Amino acid sequence: MERVLSGMQPSGYLHIGNLMGALRNWVRLQEEYECFYFVADWHALTTNYANPSVIRDYTADLLLNFLAAGLDPEKCTIFVQSKVPAHAELHVLLSMITPLGWLERVPTYKEKKEEIRNRDLGTYGFLGYPVLQSADILLYRAKYVPVGIDQVPHLEITREIARRFAFLYKNDALLEPEPLLAEFPKVTGVDGRKMSKSYDNAVYLNDPPEVVEKKILTMVTDTQRMRRTDPGDPERSPVFQLHKVFSSKDELDEVAEGCRKAKIGCIDCKRILIRNLFKVLEPIWTKRREISARPGLLDEVVASGVQKAGRAAAETMGMVKEALGLY
Amino acid sequence: MERVLSGMQPSGYLHIGNLMGALRNWVRLQEEYECFYFVADWHALTTNYANPSVIRDYTADLLLNFLAAGLDPEKCTIFVQSKVPAHAELHVLLSMITPLGWLERVPTYKEKKEEIRNRDLGTYGFLGYPVLQSADILLYRAKYVPVGIDQVPHLEITREIARRFAFLYKNDALLEPEPLLAEFPKVTGVDGRKMSKSYDNAVYLNDPPEVVEKKILTMVTDTQRMRRTDPGDPERSPVFQLHKVFSSKDELDEVAEGCRKAKIGCIDCKRILIRNLFKVLEPIWTKRREISARPGLLDEVVASGVQKAGRAAAETMGMVKEALGLY
Repeated sequence: MERVLSGMQPSGYLHIGNLMGALRNWVRLQEEYECFYFVADWHALTTNYANPSVIRDYTADLLLNFLAAGLDPEKCTIFVQSKVPAHAELHVLLSMITPLGWLERVPTYKEKKEEIRNRDLGTYGFLGYPVLQSADILLYRAKYVPVGIDQVPHLEITREIARRFAFLYKNDALLEPEPLLAEFPKVTGVDGRKMSKSYDNAVYLNDPPEVVEKKILTMVTDTQRMRRTDPGDPERSPVFQLHKVFSSKDELDEVAEGCRKAKIGCIDCKRILIRNLFKVLEPIWTKRREISARPGLLDEVVASGVQKAGRAAAETMGMVKEALGLY
Repeated sequence: MERVLSGMQPSGYLHIGNLMGALRNWVRLQEEYECFYFVADWHALTTNYANPSVIRDYTADLLLNFLAAGLDPEKCTIFVQSKVPAHAELHVLLSMITPLGWLERVPTYKEKKEEIRNRDLGTYGFLGYPVLQSADILLYRAKYVPVGIDQVPHLEITREIARRFAFLYKNDALLEPEPLLAEFPKVTGVDGRKMSKSYDNAVYLNDPPEVVEKKILTMVTDTQRMRRTDPGDPERSPVFQLHKVFSSKDELDEVAEGCRKAKIGCIDCKRILIRNLFKVLEPIWTKRREISARPGLLDEVVASGVQKAGRAAAETMGMVKEALGLY
């Protein structure tokens, strides 16, 4: 089975954007590939180093949601980055062969630095983010990394580092990973922007049902539809954008038509969305409760995942050390 | 017992400059302190990443000489950096809190970059050299790092990083190390410049006796003393500089006077130096032979040192992870 590697940063609670955009895809992939999925807690430190105490909580939330959303520890390997020190070892070694210029040119570096203005990101670790990410991937000799089409360039530096290693040491210990393209639905936040924890516009998997309901019911809709009897334009409503992700084709057409012809009001439209959203969330809530009722289960899953990941990592590190010829 | 930490880079065979300038001091310190001494093989990669196969050889030479020069594995802990992955772990964590500006200002960064022009040092790892060095020191909560007076500033960034950690996390897991000042004799190379592998002017501990002899016999002396009967100026002769390190006060005065009054020739002067140099080297050569005759001994010493170092490192990493509150 070909190997797939993917990770998530514990920089917030998991929201329905992460669920539909990434986690659902992970669940599908575990059936076809040998998947390694991890919580990238060191990565969360690159931006959150001044307040790391939240990371533990977010990590636990991620792990819980991994299982609740359908990842099966019998089918895939689930682990936490900081528990496999080989990530740090390979990171040190790759740092030696990574030109500074490559890092300064990474498009996300400048973008993120401009996006997050309230924290000082002029650190060595933040600049080296792509080196750590490359170590994460290359450590498992992964053939594929699941990405959306717009993230393909992010993988390029990892491929470059792998090629540089191969060129310098005439050795194929590190495999050039390929993007495993998937169409990820773009999930709109309750304010109409992209759903993101930094915009405070997300619906979280750990929101209680009444909170989810309230977040949807208080959403802005088509602001130019002033009265219930006015016809509206569904495309102007963020609620409709969420219908695109969570409702069936039939219901989508129905609410679009209802909006355009003023046959349904915004509250009706939202109620339909809430029903469909709950269809997705309810099994997850149930599973979260089941898992939470078994204390120690998460720890067991992580411990066994760390062991499996550690073995795969040790194999690669053996090849890497051999290639470098260290003592 | 207070803890001392020091390391040496395997970027060449050990020469008598390293012996008199550092290793002799290490041997003295093991009597009074709890010493951790290591071969910094990852550091050698910062400058030698393109040709790492020599590092294994240099590492073995260093370890052999550590023992031959008098380090006692019963009294101190001898290990190899790359065998204790916690160095890499702490390095990743410290990288998150180290401002890039601190690294760009480290005086040795620009100096070394200008000194070593034949290799591309514009790498992420080379810039991060002081972070890795800080991890090496802080990992053992060392109170002292033995340095010469001119190296005191090198320790400053480690102290700054320890303070920043303490400030950010309100935690004293990482101790600010202090310089343990020692007067290191400056050992002149056979060409009169500072002895250094990069100048190709060194006498190595693994040079056979006849090579040492030849290196001394062919040294330049006072170039203005043209004939044996001319009076010379000992201060102009690199041979005299070596006498200062290896000969007794009496013999030093004797050769100085002999030179000034043309009572001895340069060859006589060199023969005296060779005799005194051999007095230092012969016990080391004997011990090198003894150790080499016991295959497996070095490996045993390193394995037990790695274990002891690993335990000390794990203790610190426990405190560090606790401070960060990672999962």
